[in-house]
Amino acid sequence: MSHIYSMTRPIETISSASNPLIKSLKTLERKKGRNETGLFLAEGARLIGQGLANGWKLDSLVVAASMADRPHLSDLIQKAQDRGARVVLAADKLMSRVTHKDNAQSVIAAFEQKHLTLADMPQDEAGLFIALYEVRDPGNLGTILRTADCAGISGVILVETCCDPYSFESVRASMGSIFDMPFAAASFEAFNAWRQGLGLSMSAASVNGTARHDHTDFKQGSVIIMGNEQSGLTPEAEAACDQLCLIPMRGGADSLNLAQATAIMTYEAWRQRDFK
Amino acid sequence: MSHIYSMTRPIETISSASNPLIKSLKTLERKKGRNETGLFLAEGARLIGQGLANGWKLDSLVVAASMADRPHLSDLIQKAQDRGARVVLAADKLMSRVTHKDNAQSVIAAFEQKHLTLADMPQDEAGLFIALYEVRDPGNLGTILRTADCAGISGVILVETCCDPYSFESVRASMGSIFDMPFAAASFEAFNAWRQGLGLSMSAASVNGTARHDHTDFKQGSVIIMGNEQSGLTPEAEAACDQLCLIPMRGGADSLNLAQATAIMTYEAWRQRDFK
Repeated sequence: MSHIYSMTRPIETISSASNPLIKSLKTLERKKGRNETGLFLAEGARLIGQGLANGWKLDSLVVAASMADRPHLSDLIQKAQDRGARVVLAADKLMSRVTHKDNAQSVIAAFEQKHLTLADMPQDEAGLFIALYEVRDPGNLGTILRTADCAGISGVILVETCCDPYSFESVRASMGSIFDMPFAAASFEAFNAWRQGLGLSMSAASVNGTARHDHTDFKQGSVIIMGNEQSGLTPEAEAACDQLCLIPMRGGADSLNLAQATAIMTYEAWRQRDFK
Repeated sequence: MSHIYSMTRPIETISSASNPLIKSLKTLERKKGRNETGLFLAEGARLIGQGLANGWKLDSLVVAASMADRPHLSDLIQKAQDRGARVVLAADKLMSRVTHKDNAQSVIAAFEQKHLTLADMPQDEAGLFIALYEVRDPGNLGTILRTADCAGISGVILVETCCDPYSFESVRASMGSIFDMPFAAASFEAFNAWRQGLGLSMSAASVNGTARHDHTDFKQGSVIIMGNEQSGLTPEAEAACDQLCLIPMRGGADSLNLAQATAIMTYEAWRQRDFK
């Protein structure tokens, strides 16, 4: 019994914005706060439920006090308690302090970040991977995780210095795929050695590409590597590619958004594999 | 001479945030202000230059006073004066009042909106069009205009009540394609009659689709219609389609972002036409 008691921590109720938990959740909106604690925020019952279902470690759950007995929230509270997380009911006015104005939610959670390495990726010689080279926009990153998840991608590699996948914008744009799609950070050198070791072909979409992306062969194990929003790939990274391909554009058009270009490349590759 | 004099309005200099022009530009951040004036904002020299190059009517141009003699800005000032627009130099501190914090710019412009109808669209029986049914997210709308522009789409139709294409988020995400890609608003009934009159086939990406999107024939004149972010298409709109197609997703995945799904459909259709 004492074991069960210690697992199920009591539910606290807080009403002051100066409560240390509220303050500490606020710090997670910034990279510094996320780095120092190793935590990140997820808003909304659906997203938090997805994190729990995928076995991510929940640190704390804050629920709007007036809503706590709604079935989907009481279910979440029960699950959080079963996992030994801290559960707090907050006065409704406090919820708007910790959740985003344009997306008011009745529940917010702090999860522990995971930091996978290349060794943690599926070592799938026939797989299809996406590598993002210094992607800077967290909305793009989250959107690409979501698309990768839909396209059954084996894993996403964040090469060199990318934006933080655990930022609010990335987590929101991922629509829960942050919890589903394995992603690892690596230097270009380590990543390139890893993909060569697995025998994965590497193709980039590039303005320097010559072959149309749909004339590029993605049937074997492949990595699609996409460059930075402004500057694309470095010459070194392009030189390391087996194929540089070009997504056709009408004459005079400027460029595709990074996430759009990634979706077009990914779905072309997956189409060639007959969506298997 | 008097004609030339009246065309080239003098350059004003303003330093107070209570200046009526600054106040009136601020109102353009909201739909109400845009509707009342028929104007919209474009930030940054590149975007504004694109609007001018495409012949959009410039109402006013506000340049950071300290930067006004930089070549790309003095060039823009000259062009704005040639068009008879109001040109204002603003104290630098005022620029941050009218431009967006995350995107500080040294120049901002108000352009006149255009409101095209179906009759203004290219009446292209062999063309490829995109129709968006009650799209709600301006970032999605702007991103789709950008992708449509890259893919040489004939025109975009905003069906029923969509978000405002002239919002800041849409204009920014379009990366200038707001000035390039013709778009018209229409009721579903009027739009459907128009596309039938042109003999355009209508295909939707839908969770109710049966044929894979890449097994759908887009070689004839076609409209790709995409539904609302949350609720998709209405049953009536789906019933009016010639083909309901399904973008494959791995089992268990949730859904693609609307702009991502539109890019995948559009590039598949364009691929079938051999990118012509």
